[in-house]
Amino acid sequence: MNLTLHQTHHQVADFGAIFTYLKENFDKNSEGLHVFPELFLCGYPLQDLCLQKPFVKAYQKFLNDCENWIKKTLDPKKCCLLLGGLKYSLTSNGIPQKIENVIYQFGGDTSFEPIYTKRLLPNYDIFDEKKYFSKGEKSKIINVFGKNFGVLICEDMWASNFYQIDPVNDLFNHTVDENIELDGIINLSASPFVLGKKEKRHKRAIEISKVFGCPYFYTNRVGGEDEILFDGSSFVANQDSILVQGAFFSKDQKMLNWDDLPKKVTPMGLEILKESSTWEELFQSELIPQGKNTVIKPWSDEECEQIFEALKFGVQEYATKSTFSNFTIALSGGMDSALVLTILRLSLKPGQYLEAVYMPSVHSSPLSYDLSLELCQNLKIPMKTLPIKFLHSTTKNLFQQTYEEPFQGLTDENVQSRLRGTLLYTRSNQINSMVVNTSNKSELAVGYSTQYGDSVGAISMLGDLFKSQVYRLAEYLNKKFDTIIPEEIITRPPTAELRENQVDTESLPPYDRLDAMLEGILNYRYTKQDLLDLGFLQEEVEKTLNMYRRNEYKRFQFCPIIKVATKSFGFGYRVPMSKKSDFYQN
Amino acid sequence: MNLTLHQTHHQVADFGAIFTYLKENFDKNSEGLHVFPELFLCGYPLQDLCLQKPFVKAYQKFLNDCENWIKKTLDPKKCCLLLGGLKYSLTSNGIPQKIENVIYQFGGDTSFEPIYTKRLLPNYDIFDEKKYFSKGEKSKIINVFGKNFGVLICEDMWASNFYQIDPVNDLFNHTVDENIELDGIINLSASPFVLGKKEKRHKRAIEISKVFGCPYFYTNRVGGEDEILFDGSSFVANQDSILVQGAFFSKDQKMLNWDDLPKKVTPMGLEILKESSTWEELFQSELIPQGKNTVIKPWSDEECEQIFEALKFGVQEYATKSTFSNFTIALSGGMDSALVLTILRLSLKPGQYLEAVYMPSVHSSPLSYDLSLELCQNLKIPMKTLPIKFLHSTTKNLFQQTYEEPFQGLTDENVQSRLRGTLLYTRSNQINSMVVNTSNKSELAVGYSTQYGDSVGAISMLGDLFKSQVYRLAEYLNKKFDTIIPEEIITRPPTAELRENQVDTESLPPYDRLDAMLEGILNYRYTKQDLLDLGFLQEEVEKTLNMYRRNEYKRFQFCPIIKVATKSFGFGYRVPMSKKSDFYQN
Repeated sequence: MNLTLHQTHHQVADFGAIFTYLKENFDKNSEGLHVFPELFLCGYPLQDLCLQKPFVKAYQKFLNDCENWIKKTLDPKKCCLLLGGLKYSLTSNGIPQKIENVIYQFGGDTSFEPIYTKRLLPNYDIFDEKKYFSKGEKSKIINVFGKNFGVLICEDMWASNFYQIDPVNDLFNHTVDENIELDGIINLSASPFVLGKKEKRHKRAIEISKVFGCPYFYTNRVGGEDEILFDGSSFVANQDSILVQGAFFSKDQKMLNWDDLPKKVTPMGLEILKESSTWEELFQSELIPQGKNTVIKPWSDEECEQIFEALKFGVQEYATKSTFSNFTIALSGGMDSALVLTILRLSLKPGQYLEAVYMPSVHSSPLSYDLSLELCQNLKIPMKTLPIKFLHSTTKNLFQQTYEEPFQGLTDENVQSRLRGTLLYTRSNQINSMVVNTSNKSELAVGYSTQYGDSVGAISMLGDLFKSQVYRLAEYLNKKFDTIIPEEIITRPPTAELRENQVDTESLPPYDRLDAMLEGILNYRYTKQDLLDLGFLQEEVEKTLNMYRRNEYKRFQFCPIIKVATKSFGFGYRVPMSKKSDFYQN
Repeated sequence: MNLTLHQTHHQVADFGAIFTYLKENFDKNSEGLHVFPELFLCGYPLQDLCLQKPFVKAYQKFLNDCENWIKKTLDPKKCCLLLGGLKYSLTSNGIPQKIENVIYQFGGDTSFEPIYTKRLLPNYDIFDEKKYFSKGEKSKIINVFGKNFGVLICEDMWASNFYQIDPVNDLFNHTVDENIELDGIINLSASPFVLGKKEKRHKRAIEISKVFGCPYFYTNRVGGEDEILFDGSSFVANQDSILVQGAFFSKDQKMLNWDDLPKKVTPMGLEILKESSTWEELFQSELIPQGKNTVIKPWSDEECEQIFEALKFGVQEYATKSTFSNFTIALSGGMDSALVLTILRLSLKPGQYLEAVYMPSVHSSPLSYDLSLELCQNLKIPMKTLPIKFLHSTTKNLFQQTYEEPFQGLTDENVQSRLRGTLLYTRSNQINSMVVNTSNKSELAVGYSTQYGDSVGAISMLGDLFKSQVYRLAEYLNKKFDTIIPEEIITRPPTAELRENQVDTESLPPYDRLDAMLEGILNYRYTKQDLLDLGFLQEEVEKTLNMYRRNEYKRFQFCPIIKVATKSFGFGYRVPMSKKSDFYQN
């Protein structure tokens, strides 16, 4: 028997393309067992879409067409499909009353039926599955062409002591109660990428494979859905090794012949499974404690490469799905915009157009222009200069005339940033290009940006990378691509150039320390005392916490952020603005 | 015995103020039964705050201090408190493992203990309670000073057939099983305002009061939390009447003497309870079917008054909690900005400052200036003029020079709007004032606005009012306040004035019909076919659906919207941007 993992890549709700995939990959001669990702038939995440009648109606019709085509075309005696999809119970006027995230089985002894409902519905961070889905109550073992498989959907494999049920546990007890030896565990997933998750999945799958003494088949979807990326990376794990590895961030098919797989071994039972007490523990990054110089563990080259792939994929997915093929990036001569431009350049597909715009003010140094131009020459990208000096002084005069006082200080800094935002979007409108935001996670955390100014953009490429990680990634790319980014962009002191001789470190702690404190706050939920106990300086801790708590309003209106870390700003981060927030400082 | 409903108004996590309230309202002579709102001890909604260690640590300390003070100060034999709060189970390093939304009882036979855990955790629309809280398993009857009370927390009273458990049902069976006659039902609530909900609460409470044959005591909090408003409106219901009614959108205390209450009557049992099959059915608005002229049922004067109160309260709450006392509003000469300015003026508190800014372009008519000025004179508000003509032409020249083509069409329209956004925020920075957004729900639904242009603002006052409702409210205020808004602002055709002789109806269906279609799409989840069946014209339906589906990206970055309707854009509306969306047109 052959077993095929279908690592698919379709836009959410693109029923036409999903159907085409089936028609192009199957016919009456098809055979073997075929495993698809979780919710293959509709896409994921759907959020409120799955409650909207127009979606439900279209999905139900598609599901019906699909069932008919499969039944008409395939031979259930030799071909079995396991397809992730939704099962609806509707009211008489078509409104969903109950939605289940299920596996539809065709073939073997089953004629297109939902055979298993997802049991662990993740509901932390970016996940809201309890809002939409009803959970399954029972484990399931299926027999396909003489072999026994336990089935799981995504999160079902991650049961830990913060959940009340444990589908792996129940499945194991099921095999014991009914005295069944499993030939494999099959997991249909729609598992979002975060750095390090691929390795964690392997580790967990190997554990489960040992529990049952049989291989673990994992099929994951590919896609970028607003902020969330799905990396695919389907695999087959057995005991201590990964037998098969699917592509990272692109569609793939992996076919295995059953006879090539290792034989079953004696199950080791549930005792070997490890548990976590919070969801962050499953995936979180590491701080290296070094007193006041505590830092986030720097990324390895392999990790940089994964992030590089993720960012290229994420920005291209958003562009494609928003039907943009032009891009305009605002260059400042600094690190963030240089990295965005470089990654975008390296992600470019045939027919796409990328341009840079440099918008100097009276405070911009000639070096910023030179470095921006050098970068664009390296990347072979057109750069135009739109000076804001005259608009800036015109605005200043207008205020002098109207209000009898010119603006100064922070107002004067912000107006420059907002005029740039206006020019950037005017250009974007003119050639129908997508603006990619150039803010980083450190800036977002402490509000070091101008609302409607440098914070604009259709999507944020670096909003989940701390500034120190932006530098690390730039260094990695310079090693990989022969100093594609001018070295001086990396080595010059970061500055917003909104007033004379401004540098970031006047306003902020050094980035290495700032980033480590922020990671502590976000990912470890550290209090002020926890940060002091680690060895950070009181003044810096208080400053950081103070800036963090005051800037929820800027994050609220920020664009979608490509998610690559365990704890990110964006959809999974939900902190009220109107709270009393002095407890952060106690 | 006296029973007091404490309709409190505290900022989320303002533990100091909450403690002060107790200290100012209680001493050793205090007696009777005192009922507080749901989560009185911490505020609601907390979202991720309740998972953050700094919050948890501060709350736990406060709870402990509170318990000690209460035990030291009050006499449990004559004074009983029912306080809404959180009950945490923490890991050894202080991370929440289980959080319950409970009632802490002090007095009677109980010495400060959590006695009941909320059972129905709302998880639809704006509610994410399953993300944070673990549900209670059992109903609870308490005996306080010789009287029996059933207790409920908020949503527990709304059980319907889309829930799997029914706390009212269970409570009734509890009384039957243990042969207990209840003297009252007590509900601790944090129930958000939406139009019509006050009346629905009364109706439901009266039903439950009949089920048990005893009065129903309902205590709700007051507050504006980002988008969500809590109106208070605590009450006592009995059989067919409302015996006591608390204030609407302000703190209140209602004390009743038990002897003044009507006597118990025979319980009518569960049969009289009505059920709904979707959550929207509980609260939704009405469409009046009239073929292609189907409209949303127009607001009565009483409804206009409720909305007026809600909007004044909401904007002031956000300003106060963000520590703003100045406001700057951009006036266009049109209806939306005029209404925002008027409502804000009527909400003004001592020490607050409100100003208007009029920013004409080459396309602005003299009438727009005259009407803006007349409005400001009516309202006694300073208005300044910041013409954008020169900035506009300067920008145009800059593009001509740099890109060798001037911009035109939509680009030329958007740049005007964005220059206004820049000027508005420059002024806001200059005097530290809050910008209130002036978009309405119809515009948001069809994307009829410029991102970073007229869509800017700290909070949106009218983002949950369709354009036809904006007009209705303006007419109501003109009746109430002697034509405070110049009539011509209401009667002139709506226009964005971004090109010569532009009027909204060139781009959009007439607002009455547009709004009814949008309400159908949002609140009734109507498909294209449903809208056609109602009698709307095919061309208008297709245009509306097309504009609706293409503009998720604008809504994504929009500011918080004061929520007044059952289904609003904002936190409770979660629709992915990157989907394939052609199913809306099928």
